[in-house]
This record gives sequence, C-alpha cells and structure tokens, in this order.
Amino acid sequence: MQLGLVGLGRMGSGMRRRLRRRGHDVIGFDPHSAASDVTSLEALVQALSVPRTVWVMVPAGAPTREVIGQLSRMLSGGDRVVDGGNTRFTEDRIHAEILAHADIRLVDCGVSGGVWGEADGYALMVGGHPTDVSDLMPIFEALCPDGERADSFVHAGPLGAGHYAKMVHNGVEYGLMQAYAEGFELLAAEELITDVPAVLRAWSRGTVVRSWLLDLLVDAVSDEDEFFRVSGYVEDSGEGRWTVEEALRHAVPVPVISAALFARFASRQSDSPAMRAVAALRGRFGGHPVRTHRPPKE
Amino acid sequence: MQLGLVGLGRMGSGMRRRLRRRGHDVIGFDPHSAASDVTSLEALVQALSVPRTVWVMVPAGAPTREVIGQLSRMLSGGDRVVDGGNTRFTEDRIHAEILAHADIRLVDCGVSGGVWGEADGYALMVGGHPTDVSDLMPIFEALCPDGERADSFVHAGPLGAGHYAKMVHNGVEYGLMQAYAEGFELLAAEELITDVPAVLRAWSRGTVVRSWLLDLLVDAVSDEDEFFRVSGYVEDSGEGRWTVEEALRHAVPVPVISAALFARFASRQSDSPAMRAVAALRGRFGGHPVRTHRPPKE
Amino acid sequence: MQLGLVGLGRMGSGMRRRLRRRGHDVIGFDPHSAASDVTSLEALVQALSVPRTVWVMVPAGAPTREVIGQLSRMLSGGDRVVDGGNTRFTEDRIHAEILAHADIRLVDCGVSGGVWGEADGYALMVGGHPTDVSDLMPIFEALCPDGERADSFVHAGPLGAGHYAKMVHNGVEYGLMQAYAEGFELLAAEELITDVPAVLRAWSRGTVVRSWLLDLLVDAVSDEDEFFRVSGYVEDSGEGRWTVEEALRHAVPVPVISAALFARFASRQSDSPAMRAVAALRGRFGGHPVRTHRPPKE
Amino acid sequence: MQLGLVGLGRMGSGMRRRLRRRGHDVIGFDPHSAASDVTSLEALVQALSVPRTVWVMVPAGAPTREVIGQLSRMLSGGDRVVDGGNTRFTEDRIHAEILAHADIRLVDCGVSGGVWGEADGYALMVGGHPTDVSDLMPIFEALCPDGERADSFVHAGPLGAGHYAKMVHNGVEYGLMQAYAEGFELLAAEELITDVPAVLRAWSRGTVVRSWLLDLLVDAVSDEDEFFRVSGYVEDSGEGRWTVEEALRHAVPVPVISAALFARFASRQSDSPAMRAVAALRGRFGGHPVRTHRPPKE
Repeated sequence: MQLGLVGLGRMGSGMRRRLRRRGHDVIGFDPHSAASDVTSLEALVQALSVPRTVWVMVPAGAPTREVIGQLSRMLSGGDRVVDGGNTRFTEDRIHAEILAHADIRLVDCGVSGGVWGEADGYALMVGGHPTDVSDLMPIFEALCPDGERADSFVHAGPLGAGHYAKMVHNGVEYGLMQAYAEGFELLAAEELITDVPAVLRAWSRGTVVRSWLLDLLVDAVSDEDEFFRVSGYVEDSGEGRWTVEEALRHAVPVPVISAALFARFASRQSDSPAMRAVAALRGRFGGHPVRTHRPPKE
Repeated sequence: MQLGLVGLGRMGSGMRRRLRRRGHDVIGFDPHSAASDVTSLEALVQALSVPRTVWVMVPAGAPTREVIGQLSRMLSGGDRVVDGGNTRFTEDRIHAEILAHADIRLVDCGVSGGVWGEADGYALMVGGHPTDVSDLMPIFEALCPDGERADSFVHAGPLGAGHYAKMVHNGVEYGLMQAYAEGFELLAAEELITDVPAVLRAWSRGTVVRSWLLDLLVDAVSDEDEFFRVSGYVEDSGEGRWTVEEALRHAVPVPVISAALFARFASRQSDSPAMRAVAALRGRFGGHPVRTHRPPKE
Repeated sequence: MQLGLVGLGRMGSGMRRRLRRRGHDVIGFDPHSAASDVTSLEALVQALSVPRTVWVMVPAGAPTREVIGQLSRMLSGGDRVVDGGNTRFTEDRIHAEILAHADIRLVDCGVSGGVWGEADGYALMVGGHPTDVSDLMPIFEALCPDGERADSFVHAGPLGAGHYAKMVHNGVEYGLMQAYAEGFELLAAEELITDVPAVLRAWSRGTVVRSWLLDLLVDAVSDEDEFFRVSGYVEDSGEGRWTVEEALRHAVPVPVISAALFARFASRQSDSPAMRAVAALRGRFGGHPVRTHRPPKE
Repeated sequence: MQLGLVGLGRMGSGMRRRLRRRGHDVIGFDPHSAASDVTSLEALVQALSVPRTVWVMVPAGAPTREVIGQLSRMLSGGDRVVDGGNTRFTEDRIHAEILAHADIRLVDCGVSGGVWGEADGYALMVGGHPTDVSDLMPIFEALCPDGERADSFVHAGPLGAGHYAKMVHNGVEYGLMQAYAEGFELLAAEELITDVPAVLRAWSRGTVVRSWLLDLLVDAVSDEDEFFRVSGYVEDSGEGRWTVEEALRHAVPVPVISAALFARFASRQSDSPAMRAVAALRGRFGGHPVRTHRPPKE
C-alpha cells in the first residue's frame, strides 16, 4: 500500500524502514532530514496516487497543527490523514474540523514502542471511522509485531480514542517506572543487599514483576559507567499531566500516577519553595535549626 | 539431590513436582495434606541422609517459627534449613540463632512465581553463607525457569538478604498493579473508549508497559462474567507494609508504593472514619449538605 | 456607600446584613428569594445612582456568566461589577471582555468565611485595577473582621488574582482537613486512646496544630448523635481540582493537596473499578481468594 | 506543689519558669546547664520530699532511658516519674516495668507548644493511672494556657496514651505544614499574584484556613532577608515516621501524612537514586536525552 509519511525523526524513520521491509511503498518527507524522499510537502502530495494517505509523525502541538493545516489545503476530498504523534485527544476534534472543510478524513493513532519498534514492532491505538480504519489495516498490520496484531492493535473508538488510550498508556508508564525506581532506591539503601543490579536481574524472569521496562532497567543500572553519569533530573512530556487532568475531570483517584508525576516535578527543582517554607516554619515554632542555602543545582 | 520439603500447599506441592521432574529426590511432609510422603516431621528427618537439607515452605510468622524450632531439636550439626516462605527479614537472624545452637545452618530464599512457577519456573532471591548457597545450587537451578538461572536467581547477600529482596519485590508489585488499575479505571470512565479490555490487550505486545502482570490483567478483565463478580476489596499480605517500614527506616521516599498500599487499606473500609470527619467538618463551616449513613458494606 | 448585590443565598444575605449594620446602603436582588429588595435585575440597576457598583454573589459557572452578560447590557460606562463568587480565574478575563465592550470594569473577589462571616467578618482576596479596588475599600473594610483588615484583605494583583488566591486557599483547605481527618482515624483505631474527641479538644489550645478548622472538628465529633449519622461521602466543589490543574501547569508538586482530593473522589465510589482490577489480578497470579460483590452503596 | 525537673533545655527551662511564676517549687537538674539548681541527679532526689515527683524532660531514646534507669535506683516506692519527652509510646511499657521493680509509678505526658509555651501555655496529653494523673493536676493546670485547661489537657488513657496522642499530633502537624507549603509554592509560581506574603497574611483572619501555623508562616515568609537564606532541607524528628508505622499497623490510610513525610525525605537528597533510575530508564526506551550529573548539594 502507498503511504506518505511526514516526519523522519527517530520514530518516523524507523517506521519507514519497517514498512518498506514489509513491501509497502512509503514516500517520506522531512524538511530537516537528508533522508527525505521529496523536497517539499507539495511534492509529497503530488507523488501520491489518489485517494492519498498521509501519516503525520511530527511533535505534538504547534508542529502537528501546522502540518495538518497545510495538508488541508493540499489534499483532496476522499484523502486521509493519520496523526501518529502524541497529540492531545482534545485537539483531534479541532484538526478533524479543519480537514473536514476539504472533505479529508482524520484517523488518530497512538504509537508505542520507541526506538525498539522498528525491529520489534509497534503497538497501535487507533481512533476514527471504521471504514477509514479498515482501509488502513495493511499499514497497521505491518507496523505491529509480527503475528501479534491481536495483542498490539486496537480500534479504541471514534476519533480521539486512539490518542486517549495512548495518553493513559503513558500515565501508567509513569507509575510503573516510579514503582521500580522506588524499589531500586530501597535496595540500594540496605546494607544486606550486596549487588543491586543482580537483584533486579533476578526479578526479570519467573517473577510477578517481570516486564520489558524491568529488562531495560536491569541494563541501565548494570552499565555502571553510564549509570554513574546519569542525573536524577527527569522531564515529563505532557501526557502524564493530561492523564491526571483527565482523572480530575472524571473524578477518578490516581494517587500512583500523580505521585510519579510529582516526583518528576520535584526532581527538577534545585531547591523546593515548598520545603523552604516548611523549613522556615519549623524554625519558627520549635527553634529547630534551619539550614542556610546550598548552591543551586546546575 | 535429596531434599526434605515441609509444607505442601499451593507453592510447596508445585515445587515438589517441578523438582522431581528434574530428577531430584524430594520427600515432602505436610500434616494437613494427603499427599504427604511421611507421617511426621520426625519421620521426614529420619528418611533423609546426612547432611540433611530441609526446605521449609509454610506460612510466615508463627507456623514457620514453630517448624524451625522443631527442626532445631531434630536435625544434627552440619544439616541445613532453607526458609522459602515470606518470612520478614528481621526474623531470619532469630531463626538462625535458634538453629545455630545445634550447629545447623540457615539459608533464606524468597520465591516468586506463584501458582505459575511449577510450569514456568520460579525466581529465587537467596541470602546466606556462600558455601551453603553453593551446595544448594542444583536445587535452585531446577526451580528456576529452564536456561534462565542468570535472570531469575540471585545470591543477594548474607542471611536475610533473600527475604529482603523478595519483600521489596512485593512492594514494587503493589505499585505496578495500582498503576495498571488506575489506567484501567480511567479508560473505563471515558466514553470515547468503546472496549476497555481490547485497549489493555493492545498494550500487551510492543508497548513500553507490556509485562506479565498486564497479560494477567487482560485475561482478568476480558472474562466479563468473572470480572463482574469481583469486588474491589483487596487484602495485603504484610510485605507491602514491611517495605514501607523499611523505607521509613532508610528515609527513602516511596510515594507510589505507599499510595498503592493505602488504596488497599481504603478498599476494605465500609465507611472511612477520616472521610466522615471531613464530611462533618464541611457541614460545619460551609453549611454544605452532609449525607447520612449508607448501609455498611458486607 | 451604595451597593447593588445580586444573589441572596447563604453568603449574599449574610453579607447584606453585615454591610447594612455598618451603615452601607445595600440593595439586594435575588429572583428566588422573598427577601429581594427589588423585583428584577433591571429594577436593581434603576435603583442605583451612577456610577453604579454591582456585587455578583451567585454560583460560579453558568449562573455567574448569565448575570454578567445581563449586566453588560444594563449598566453604563464607568459602572463597576464585583464578582464575589468562586469563579475560575481563567473566566475572569472572558467576563472582563464582555463588560469592557460597554466600558464597565470588573473586579474579582474571593470571599472566605462561610456562614460564620456575617458575625466574624470575611476574608477577601481581590484582583483588579488599583483605582477600582481603591474605590471599593469602604465595602471591603466593612466586610472584613473588625479592626483586622490588614490580616484579612489583600489586593493580590491584576484581574483574576483574587480568584486565584481564593482557589489556592481552598486547595490548602482540602489538605488541612485531610490531615486532621487522618489523625482522627488513627486515634480512633488505637485502643490506648479512650476518648478521641477529648484528645482533639486538648489540641485546640496551646498546640502547634491549633486552628479554626480544628475547633470545628472538635465540635463536629463531640456531638455524638450528629456524628453517628454522618456518612463518609465527600463532595468537592471544583476549586480543589483547579488547584491541582494549576499545579500541573506550573509543574509544582502537590502531593498533599492532590491526595486530599483523591480521597474525596474515592469516598464517593461504591466500589472502585481500580481496586476491582487489583483484586482480580491478585486472584490470577497468586490464587488469592477474591471477594464477590457487595451490594452497592446508596 | 514540689517538682523535680530533669532537663533544662529549651523546653525544660521554659517550663520551670512558668511553673515557678505560678507558685510551684521546682528544683531543676541538668548536667549541661549552668542554670541547674543541684549538681547531680542524686542531689535532686535528696532535695525532694517524699513522695517525690520527678519530671523527665530530656531527648527521647537513649537519654530518657538512661535517666529512667538511674531514677529507678534512686527513688523509693510511692514516688512518681513523669516522662514529658517525645518518647515512643511502645517504650513507655518498658520504662514502666523498670520503675515498677522499685514500686515507682510512671506517667507519660506529651507536651506541645514549643518555645512559645512558656508565655502562652503548653498543651498536655497524658497517659497513666487516674490516681497519679489526679495527683499531678496542679502541675498540669499551671502548664496549660491560663483558664483553658479544658481545651489543652487530656487524660488520654492508660500508660502510653499520652505519647500516642502527641505522636499523632505531630503527624498531623506534618500534613498541615505541607498543605500550606504547597499553597505557598503555587502562589509563588503564578505571575498574577504580585505579593505572596500579603496573600498569606490575608488568609490569617476570617478564613477557613486560619491557624497558628499560618500566623508563623506569614511571619517567616515576610522576613525576606531571613527567608532568602533558608534552604529547603527539612529534618524529621521521628514522630512522623512512627505515625505512619502506626497507620500501617492499624491499616489506616494516611496519604497526606505520609506524603508530607516523604517530601521531607526527598528534600534531604542531593540527587535521588530513584529519579536517576527513572532518568536512565527513559533514556533507554525512548532515546530521551539524559542529564549528566550536577555537582552535589552541600
């Protein structure tokens, strides 16, 4: 099947290679990549046979919206756009309306698998009209792990459902990572445990906590030179926050996902204003000694 | 290798079968099991050649302590006891002293894998003297998943280290389960998502959150008849609490593991005294309406 | 000073009485109240001398927006509107634009003090232009506790700052209430403590935790007949959620405020979907017994 | 009434002054204080008329246990010891047994009020036998805020109940402080708010969140020179941990108190091992950039 692919970063370029290896005709465009197959978005659109399918794989937010806007002016009625980025599900409706003016259909697709997906396959969470999803199945099939489409693909619901499912997936991921990390820290704090990476490795087969994330963690902490250089400064990419916002909207308690998110916020503070207030308060009522400032973190 | 095995419950009986299939000579004793090979602990001890190895696989706490006490009077110098239960690591030292009076050695071994371990193999976290651990390796090897001993076995440190590692493993497990459960609830609350089990299933291959626990969760929520009957009342088995206590002792922040534990506590309350206090307080200051009692949960 | 007051509920009627007792000329309107001084919003506007000041004290959201819309058509250039409700700060800008078309100024004012404010005075957090705030000082002065304006009034910043400060105030309030409530539950769980209300009462003077909320809690739990009837079902009014959303926007960790909010969410669930998933999962991997359904809460 | 007082630190010396001003005969001893009235514990015991009452006001743990041990050898049958320190309630029973061998009675008394108690009065939470408590009432009365004994004193139950009530009091205090601190940080993060200390000050009268702790916080953050120098490094004194341990023992969910405690733990880490693990993990699966080490905090 023929597919236009906009965005050839870590994810997009891996997907192009995987799709091509499985026989699909992928024309990729990325203005910032030497590997671009065409020199402009217009050239990409020209190169595709109608009805066209263009998969957008660029950063969420303004970059995605800009590409969608351009495509709404270049594509024709009956063409299809797939948004494979981490777009917030609330924006899917806005993008769909922009495209609908030109009778172009939108499908949203959350893609998981990271840099490993090219070799191992990607998991796909898709939202949109059943006809559109059905037409795209050859592409979805090729992206999923071989022979495991049933366990790595879902048509989660109408437009937005794919990004919603991916957003919650990422929220869960925050919680899982923090759970392992707390266990790691506790093992490292206990003198009885003589080899922390070896304990984590022994959890990786046969246990209740075995997982792909744990395998990665074992690798990460076992490479001592690398791990020694890592700082406990952790970004968050937006989807954790959106997940908690959705929990607020639905009145769903998410103590674990939110705790994992707040741990990331705190990890980025050189000195917490809140804890400074607590320290000052302690000094006031109890005459407890108060530490004066440390030099700020980098 | 010859092994006495005390306790033939779900875990012990599975371990006996697995060990026998791999050629070991296991003599099992359980006063409450028709499958017991001998009729008393004394008979078990008599049946073993010196130096004997007795694996204790009974509930932690009083039952384990009682068996250890009896063995300390029946075994001889040079014999070995392996405690494979979920004993708190602080008790290992007490048990070791009891046994040391008769020159008997203790090895502690946390065993993970549940009812699936008989077929898939168990993960083992072991504490004790290197000589003892080394002598027991044929047994450990047979219990681990075939060909994966390096990823499912660890000699974690001196006596107590095995149970410590298993305790932290269980604490992490609480956090992982709660993270998935929060994601599940959020998906179920969102109207866009038309098939929640299908979304979870699509997470099970190719994603960052894939794991054995997720596979089980997919099975659990996919069986609608079964899941419909499940109540949100969740026990905790002690090790989650011990993990948090260790975090307190080491001043390690464990927001996720503790949140998962507290969610279990709350799940067992028919009506929360704390929330009744909050409700009463709101009624006082704001004139907010207050609900009168619901009938208690079963 | 003359003031039009829209909304004569618990808060508005108390404020009218307090302002009148301090010599202000308050004309109140409420279509649902027999105590309304005029029969329509138009009549209220007619009764006021220019430049008019109208204080809106109706529920946040649609009701407030509707009154603001009506006032934008009835008032004249140079008139002023004060929004004393719990409007989300993000809406203040929208309301200000609606009013600005008619050259009407908006001041936002968060009001704390509940039903006790009429007698004890209200705390006021105000946002808006300095001239407008200055002109309104006689009203603010009269509403504050006598002689304590410096400790109960703040011009917190430009438009929206007042509602922002009030929103955070309510978020903090959630945390404080939950902290006391957890302490209450723990005291109630401990056999050594023979009289829980008496312990709380002994905290109410001389201690580090003494507060007005604690005084209310002592009263609430001391009235055994009343407290016995209270159910642990706790509503949240929106501002706790907005506070957490702001924390997400600013990447400020709020583990305590969010935990207090999630405890309220959980208090309203008859059976937690998340905990049902945890229970089902435990049953799967460990053969742990699973409870079947309880009858739902009312 | 005559009282021996061991320990003349911040708390003990304030209590001696307050008791003397109210006419009590206090003989104080502290080996490290020039203000000691006698030169040895033996001299203190000699100076008191039988039956003697000795109030121990020294740091919890080893210091208290040592003084109790010495007093068990120096006092006589019918004498009384009051432990006014922050002893863990579980140790009260051990101390009582030590003293009981010499027929000496123990009363435990949690004291709140900090350095402000000398002027404002202390709150007292007492455990012990009713006869002993009754005999000590003149002392308790004098320590409490004038005329407010009913709201600042409780005989909370048998031996240990006083320290239990004080422990929970401190746990609640952690939660309250963190709630205010989170609100402070959020206000400070929001550009609309032009004067954060002024907002906190406006909360201090008339609001739902007014309290003594808030008054202290207003003072603390208003002194800019002082607050600028405070570092967000916060100790914990043991009672917060014990409170959470008790919550674990009683299966009481304490999400707020534990979150406040963990925030303190985290405030003392120069670089969190858990967050380093999260950062390393992110780098592995997503190719996310990882920060290398910052220089450690002081």
